[in-house]
Amino acid sequence: MCEANVYLIDKEGKEKLFLESVDKFVPQGNTIHMENIYGERKIIKADIIEMKLVDHRILIAEK
Amino acid sequence: MCEANVYLIDKEGKEKLFLESVDKFVPQGNTIHMENIYGERKIIKADIIEMKLVDHRILIAEK
Repeated sequence: MCEANVYLIDKEGKEKLFLESVDKFVPQGNTIHMENIYGERKIIKADIIEMKLVDHRILIAEK
Repeated sequence: MCEANVYLIDKEGKEKLFLESVDKFVPQGNTIHMENIYGERKIIKADIIEMKLVDHRILIAEK
């Protein structure tokens, strides 16, 4: 499967795993809505920093 | 490999394949920079509409 893990840089500049195995990823205004392959959903105010899909890695930064 | 195909909705509202097998995908300001697994790069002024990674599909809309 080709889901990706989403890592978040928080307001203190620390990087952590935010949601694993994300399938759907939808920016809406200031927020990003995401859902993983297990049906877990998260919404966060964040910017997309970069995606490296072959590495299954999405990096976002909290606003 | 877990790259995705990027589809673009152009200013006329038509959807077309913009770049296939994208690995790196980086929003920068108003633009999106992307590179596929063959080293081909494209930059476009666009918004991200949605990503469905399990379907290898990213949809963007031209600004």
